[in-house]
Amino acid sequence: MPKGQPTVVPDDGLTTRQRRNRPLVFVHTGMGKGKSTAAFGLALRAWNQGWPVGVFQFVKSAKWRVGEERALKVLGETGEGGTVAWHKMGEGWSWVQRDISSSEEAAREGWEQVKRDLAAESYRLYVLDEFAYPLHWGWIDTQEVISVLRDRPGTQHVVVTGRNAPQELVDFADLVTDMSKVKHPMDTGQKGQRGIEW
Amino acid sequence: MPKGQPTVVPDDGLTTRQRRNRPLVFVHTGMGKGKSTAAFGLALRAWNQGWPVGVFQFVKSAKWRVGEERALKVLGETGEGGTVAWHKMGEGWSWVQRDISSSEEAAREGWEQVKRDLAAESYRLYVLDEFAYPLHWGWIDTQEVISVLRDRPGTQHVVVTGRNAPQELVDFADLVTDMSKVKHPMDTGQKGQRGIEW
Repeated sequence: MPKGQPTVVPDDGLTTRQRRNRPLVFVHTGMGKGKSTAAFGLALRAWNQGWPVGVFQFVKSAKWRVGEERALKVLGETGEGGTVAWHKMGEGWSWVQRDISSSEEAAREGWEQVKRDLAAESYRLYVLDEFAYPLHWGWIDTQEVISVLRDRPGTQHVVVTGRNAPQELVDFADLVTDMSKVKHPMDTGQKGQRGIEW
Repeated sequence: MPKGQPTVVPDDGLTTRQRRNRPLVFVHTGMGKGKSTAAFGLALRAWNQGWPVGVFQFVKSAKWRVGEERALKVLGETGEGGTVAWHKMGEGWSWVQRDISSSEEAAREGWEQVKRDLAAESYRLYVLDEFAYPLHWGWIDTQEVISVLRDRPGTQHVVVTGRNAPQELVDFADLVTDMSKVKHPMDTGQKGQRGIEW
């Protein structure tokens, strides 16, 4: 529960309102559960504000995120909040017509579309789900990502999730939470279950 | 991304399926952001499975969770997934008719209703939002909570969020994530903003 009063008031020439409404970059990293679920929880707030939300799912498993995907799509279609666009690497991305030969290439194609959308200000909240992996593996250049995020126009919030987020991205981000695993049922032999893991 | 295979197969007499579907107690604690948002993200998965979801919001601020509340209520009303019941301490709880004199009393009344609902198997997922606080402050007895959770009937998953979750509850829970704050915009003088903090 963050307190209402910041302890530091920076000398940045901004009013409190201007500073308050600056667009943010979030990183949810660490070995524990909750990195992506927290990002999708954030998407509920964005939806409630009427913001267009863009999800880019940088994972290949078809089972992953089915609950969140359906819930957010249903919400987007009600017309009572923001719109929701859901993009899946696992289906080869809708904007790519040719065959993609590798996960690395697929991840890069995803990032190219994120760049186009940021330039076009397509969304107000971007959930780059599991995007830390292609950065960690060096498939996408972290410095380029930071540079694009730093120069993005307008008011566009971006959440990056996934283990092993590169330190440079952590240093650059505005809000970073490390989800640490204290205990997981898998440790005592319990496999993931419907409604809980997906 | 948990791997599909547990490293330990316990000698508990259960089949893999029985073990997989055991009801879980989650604790999201720590000083970082994402404890409650991850719980509401989990509620999306539950909704998608058609599970009845009960949220008990153990906080008094009217501003908190407005986005999640509206989104989950809208989802619950679509009839395309589970139902959602949202209970608020900040409004004195709907089942309490008399005036409540203190936060401590209000928290206790909340817990009494959770007990009744667990006994009646009212929901399949319980989000006890910020419930770690009244436990930490000693307003509600942690041993009693553990005892009630241990003996709860049927298949009822329970998520407890909040800083300073008591160690006994952490020891008892099946899945515990510590959300550690690495960085928060408040540290550099940026106050919470609409769509992000609520």
